[in-house]
Amino acid sequence: MQDKNQRDISIRLKKLGENSSFVNDEVVSERNQKRHYLHTLRTEHLMSDTLDTLENLTYDELHEGDTATFTRSLSENELVLFAAVSGDVNPVHLDPEFAASSMFGERIAHGMWSGSLISAALATVMPGPGTIYLDQSLSFKRPVKLDDTLTVSLTVLRKEPKNRVIFQCVVTNQNNQKVVTGEAKVIAPTEKVILYKPTLPKITIEGCD
Amino acid sequence: MQDKNQRDISIRLKKLGENSSFVNDEVVSERNQKRHYLHTLRTEHLMSDTLDTLENLTYDELHEGDTATFTRSLSENELVLFAAVSGDVNPVHLDPEFAASSMFGERIAHGMWSGSLISAALATVMPGPGTIYLDQSLSFKRPVKLDDTLTVSLTVLRKEPKNRVIFQCVVTNQNNQKVVTGEAKVIAPTEKVILYKPTLPKITIEGCD
Repeated sequence: MQDKNQRDISIRLKKLGENSSFVNDEVVSERNQKRHYLHTLRTEHLMSDTLDTLENLTYDELHEGDTATFTRSLSENELVLFAAVSGDVNPVHLDPEFAASSMFGERIAHGMWSGSLISAALATVMPGPGTIYLDQSLSFKRPVKLDDTLTVSLTVLRKEPKNRVIFQCVVTNQNNQKVVTGEAKVIAPTEKVILYKPTLPKITIEGCD
Repeated sequence: MQDKNQRDISIRLKKLGENSSFVNDEVVSERNQKRHYLHTLRTEHLMSDTLDTLENLTYDELHEGDTATFTRSLSENELVLFAAVSGDVNPVHLDPEFAASSMFGERIAHGMWSGSLISAALATVMPGPGTIYLDQSLSFKRPVKLDDTLTVSLTVLRKEPKNRVIFQCVVTNQNNQKVVTGEAKVIAPTEKVILYKPTLPKITIEGCD
């Protein structure tokens, strides 16, 4: 079984694309494994937290209380790209003058941008590739403003039959204030996978008049 | 009170930016108001469903059973932009060869992209500008593939005190299959607003090697 997994990993270890990437934000992630994990296993898991690879944690490798984090900052790029990809062109996200007159006093992130960071944390850090997303609840607690740095913290709340895993999801800003909380239910992968991260094509945003 | 609202609307009626827009997908929306709505009011609401303006529905204007839709298609652009803005660079969304070997057989959308369409429908169609997002539940039912056209259908389930409104949210594909279901809780706006939609700056995505 180990041999088969090893072979599958090798097959999937391929570098995708060489273009310069838009995704150059700091991505910090860590997994605080419970003490029943061997040190060697913990080291192996940490290997997936580099910028170059995605390594999953299988259902068997996940334990109640395991945690992982994923960090990302809000720039004007995110405001424009999220508006484009979702179709939510509300000026409170895009127009500084309009936003200044709003109850928030300045441009704010689309709430679902924080949701997208939770999904990214689940899909790339814990459990990582091969995860199937079943359910997500989101409670929006506080607005996110330009230059805010958000940290998604995932914690395994419980494991259920048929490879289901329930995660607590908390997104905090740089002042440790909760901006979004929720729970996710996924089918965790059963096959070990280590992948090179695809490099995105270069994305250019023209300046506004 | 009407005068004040009219003045506020005038203040906010300003055209933002003139660059060509990435957001040129078909956006179809409709509001099936209940019969207690006057025809003139229904006509007024439909005005906000053009490509140029965003018009909100205030708490008082929303009634149980009211519906609205928001439609958008998945192209490679959405896959790349959502990966960039969320940080979810899982190759099942980006690499045709990898995705072909996955359980889905081809590239699929990020699940949270469908979530972002729900948030866009709430923020731009019903209730529209001035809405404050409180809670969202999402249940992912089926993968979304390239060239799929998704329709978000919002229905007012109930109105609660303090301007809270609960919406049923159903996202279906072009075959009328449900891809995402959920519920949203928002604070509906109390002030009437009609805005020109901001025009996004041009976004260019370089081709992959």
